[in-house]
Amino acid sequence: MTSTDSKPLFERMALIGAGLIGSSLARVVRRDGLAGHIAVAARSQATLDTMTDLGLADSATLDAAEAVRDADLIVLCTPLGTYEAIAKTIASALKPGAIVSDVGSCKESMFTDVAPHLPDGVHMVPGHPVAGTEHSGPEAGFAELFDGRWCILTPVPDTDQDAVDKVADLWRQCGMDVEIMDAAHHDQVLALTSHLPHLIAYTIVGTATDLEDDLKKEVFKYSASGFRDFTRIAASDPVMWRDILIKNSSAVLDVLGRFTEDLTSLQRAIRRGEAGTLEDHFTRTRAIRRGVIDAKQD
Amino acid sequence: MTSTDSKPLFERMALIGAGLIGSSLARVVRRDGLAGHIAVAARSQATLDTMTDLGLADSATLDAAEAVRDADLIVLCTPLGTYEAIAKTIASALKPGAIVSDVGSCKESMFTDVAPHLPDGVHMVPGHPVAGTEHSGPEAGFAELFDGRWCILTPVPDTDQDAVDKVADLWRQCGMDVEIMDAAHHDQVLALTSHLPHLIAYTIVGTATDLEDDLKKEVFKYSASGFRDFTRIAASDPVMWRDILIKNSSAVLDVLGRFTEDLTSLQRAIRRGEAGTLEDHFTRTRAIRRGVIDAKQD
Repeated sequence: MTSTDSKPLFERMALIGAGLIGSSLARVVRRDGLAGHIAVAARSQATLDTMTDLGLADSATLDAAEAVRDADLIVLCTPLGTYEAIAKTIASALKPGAIVSDVGSCKESMFTDVAPHLPDGVHMVPGHPVAGTEHSGPEAGFAELFDGRWCILTPVPDTDQDAVDKVADLWRQCGMDVEIMDAAHHDQVLALTSHLPHLIAYTIVGTATDLEDDLKKEVFKYSASGFRDFTRIAASDPVMWRDILIKNSSAVLDVLGRFTEDLTSLQRAIRRGEAGTLEDHFTRTRAIRRGVIDAKQD
Repeated sequence: MTSTDSKPLFERMALIGAGLIGSSLARVVRRDGLAGHIAVAARSQATLDTMTDLGLADSATLDAAEAVRDADLIVLCTPLGTYEAIAKTIASALKPGAIVSDVGSCKESMFTDVAPHLPDGVHMVPGHPVAGTEHSGPEAGFAELFDGRWCILTPVPDTDQDAVDKVADLWRQCGMDVEIMDAAHHDQVLALTSHLPHLIAYTIVGTATDLEDDLKKEVFKYSASGFRDFTRIAASDPVMWRDILIKNSSAVLDVLGRFTEDLTSLQRAIRRGEAGTLEDHFTRTRAIRRGVIDAKQD
């Protein structure tokens, strides 16, 4: 679909925040003419200038309320910790029938931090495009980021179906497969598949940071033996991940509890030299890899 | 160097074990004519048949003592837990001046499990080519596996220099950069860069295995968000890793202790909503990634 041969999906789309995800979305919207006008709001003038220079913003402002005025789609692309303040700022500027969505990794946040501030007649369709890299900022974005990945939407059952369909259409245009899920369930699944792995990678890389200097140098040198994968994950945006772990703390602490129980039991097996316990455990995990490959996520 | 235009590095090389590493080494030795004869010993006839079919074994036997007879280089390519039994089996068949080496991930094992059984006049040069994939078995090998990676040798200071040089030459022919290091220091460095990451990956993937079936299916589906990297690591050979963690338990338990302290402190910060603690920690780890990239390990 392009704006020249048919009506765009949205007349005016407002992006609040333009980092890796926001700028990647803007690239697809621009490429395929999915919005008549892209309004970008960001905290820093530098981000706005970059988006304008990249040709991804028809208007750019430091004032989120100004960006959302007359927009039929608003997408929050900022760290979860900013949601409540943004919701308060934009609430009175939203037009009736506008759709408010987001791209955050914890979906309950939309219900606790955003929904209470939205006026009647505005539709909330929380979204999570499950895609990313360890890079951040508007220059790190690219239109193919979403291709072949999942996008999870977590509207409540009585959400306006047209609004849900339009947001789903937007992500399908980005090349994503769209799933509808309960927000709490989403947060539980992602706590294990994403939030816990990031927390652990951040932890082990931090443990290395605290080593004496000569040992640390060797840790870099021989990182190809496993550690390297963790350093890549632990290079992700610190503020984004700080907010995810705090906003989804309940689900994260639950899976973290399970993980540390399992780790303690393996630690005990190592200390006691229980070869059979270790081998059994490590054999079971091989099957999981097969499951991941079968699910075409590799 | 090829066998046609000069004397091979070794007249007879005995590989004890022919999995990913052993068969990859055999491929390089064959390709470059580094040994006049490759004798392969393995536990299973199937492995021997595969090595013979691949043209990588000039002789193949289930009896390690037979393989090492008259060999000037013996390389143990089996899980660490087999070292002591193999050392006892081959000791009396070793010829004077023979070099005994290995490819194991814990280097103290050679001193505790192998050295006490070797006759006088035999040179021990422990080695660790820091390379691998999550695949195993003789078919999984390939000659380029070692290219551009590190090989760490851990001879004691009074080891015969010619023996050390010949083993170093072998790995350089494989494309590796060779480092000499103290065995205990090696085990400490690898505990952090390799053994702990594997243990953690095995643990978290195991935690997922214990989930209810419907949740588990979704964990596969959305694994691209971080979990996927862990499943790849956790698909490594269970017996090999069982032995590494048990043989290097002292260094592994030490770094595991540091890791769990750090994890507990981050867990506490999440539970108490201490945003600053998390952000500070996550910001520090970004610098480490830069160190890894500078060390050209990515």
